[in-house]
Amino acid sequence: MNRDDVLAAARRIAGRVHRTPVLTSRTLDAELGAKLFFKCENLQRTGAFKIRGATNAVRQLPRHVQAVATHSSGNHGAALALAAREAGLQAFIVVPSDARTSKRASIARYGATVVECEPTLAARAATLEQVVQDTGATFVPPYDHPHIIAGAGTAALELLADCGPLDQIWAPVGGGGLAAGTALAADASEVILAEPELARDAKDSLEAGELRPALPPRTIADGLRTGLGTLNFDILQRNGCRALLASESSIEHWTERIAQIMKLVVEPSAATTLASMADNPGVVSGRVGMLLSGGNL
Amino acid sequence: MNRDDVLAAARRIAGRVHRTPVLTSRTLDAELGAKLFFKCENLQRTGAFKIRGATNAVRQLPRHVQAVATHSSGNHGAALALAAREAGLQAFIVVPSDARTSKRASIARYGATVVECEPTLAARAATLEQVVQDTGATFVPPYDHPHIIAGAGTAALELLADCGPLDQIWAPVGGGGLAAGTALAADASEVILAEPELARDAKDSLEAGELRPALPPRTIADGLRTGLGTLNFDILQRNGCRALLASESSIEHWTERIAQIMKLVVEPSAATTLASMADNPGVVSGRVGMLLSGGNL
Repeated sequence: MNRDDVLAAARRIAGRVHRTPVLTSRTLDAELGAKLFFKCENLQRTGAFKIRGATNAVRQLPRHVQAVATHSSGNHGAALALAAREAGLQAFIVVPSDARTSKRASIARYGATVVECEPTLAARAATLEQVVQDTGATFVPPYDHPHIIAGAGTAALELLADCGPLDQIWAPVGGGGLAAGTALAADASEVILAEPELARDAKDSLEAGELRPALPPRTIADGLRTGLGTLNFDILQRNGCRALLASESSIEHWTERIAQIMKLVVEPSAATTLASMADNPGVVSGRVGMLLSGGNL
Repeated sequence: MNRDDVLAAARRIAGRVHRTPVLTSRTLDAELGAKLFFKCENLQRTGAFKIRGATNAVRQLPRHVQAVATHSSGNHGAALALAAREAGLQAFIVVPSDARTSKRASIARYGATVVECEPTLAARAATLEQVVQDTGATFVPPYDHPHIIAGAGTAALELLADCGPLDQIWAPVGGGGLAAGTALAADASEVILAEPELARDAKDSLEAGELRPALPPRTIADGLRTGLGTLNFDILQRNGCRALLASESSIEHWTERIAQIMKLVVEPSAATTLASMADNPGVVSGRVGMLLSGGNL
């Protein structure tokens, strides 16, 4: 995969997703010591960047496909539901029984069928397999897939198109869809990944040079609890990306501060970028892009 | 005053204030039955449209002026503080002693001198007069002034430039700076004013054909508690604007809903537009601009 895949994704999803605004804040620039450009994917359709990858994936399905399925307790589920509805496809989303009502409601709002399962990885896999068998739906994975990665990378493409060259682009890393897509799109900008201390498998994997397993899901940045995907790890490693950690208290602080200063509702995963910047002084420098990944609380 | 005053203000403040984004939401379009375009002045510098008028006023002061003063417990104080600092002027802001610490802090953050007074209208006027006498500062009023009105109108100009013709533009009305500026800028669009039931002096004044006094400051939409200004009333009347009321519970509901659906932090005053739209079914129609006036909670 390379930048051309992201450029092709951008053409494919144009007009189907928002071109989100890029905002700036002189107050935060002064506080953090850089010129920051915030790409507001919290203002994206379904409230997160995930609609980019979902739309790019759905639009490349073979003609005979009439339904899609995935597992998600969060943003990917809502994104796939909407992308499928707009392509005239059915969607089945496997959701753990302990997922919040609001998440389930937003998946249902976009016309998908919610299929409940026990809140274990084994139950999730078994339920998804059953759904695929029963309905003939095609599985669209949440991050470990080239079409999802290329779609996610279009946010960084737009950021660069709107701001001109950037010295650094900071992106949160969980499963690694946004991170890998950004690495592909970044051109000459250094990509720096922001990761909660409590979910530090990406940092450990990149430093060890081999994929490390996910940690127990304890961080408040619920979008970043997932373990890094194989394809995602490969792309991040090839592009020489590094990950920096953020403490839980810092993630909480910056979630609140972005609302206060920038008047934007962001989820903790999105604030992890500013948190890791503040927790690792001396790294940020020059003209800097920030991917505010989502706003679903 | 006419549209040319707003066009001149736009040239004067260009590059000194943000050109704020215009956002859309298919969810809210479906809910309210119109195509809505939200002009996000909550994302403006200092978190509100007020910086437009303050900058337009400060940039037209005579050369010999070295300081400005005003009274404000809210957005105008912070806006004048910033506009003055950027023009190399001192600013003195008279703030009632019961104003929230956060408001005072944001005024001080922009380098102004905060002058405390007793929380009565008489004490406010006396303190401001004393400040002007002691310091030689020029009083820049919050809304009842042609430069403030023309500056505020630039938000609607940008909205029309970005969206093309609109059937209606909805703006909240308090003192009437944004309302009157919008009326001047609106071109062929109908301007509809949104006002809390508990602060209905604009509606009563426009229907009676004469200025009615302000009501006791009880609405949660704290930016709209002020009574309508004289010049503002005159402009609104001449342009045939009408005002529609919103209940307190509806204002609260839509403040929350804008955060949930649009991921924007807005103050209750800004949500009053959607609240009055929902409270007066059958009025909204076609392509509709919405002025989200501010985001300072």
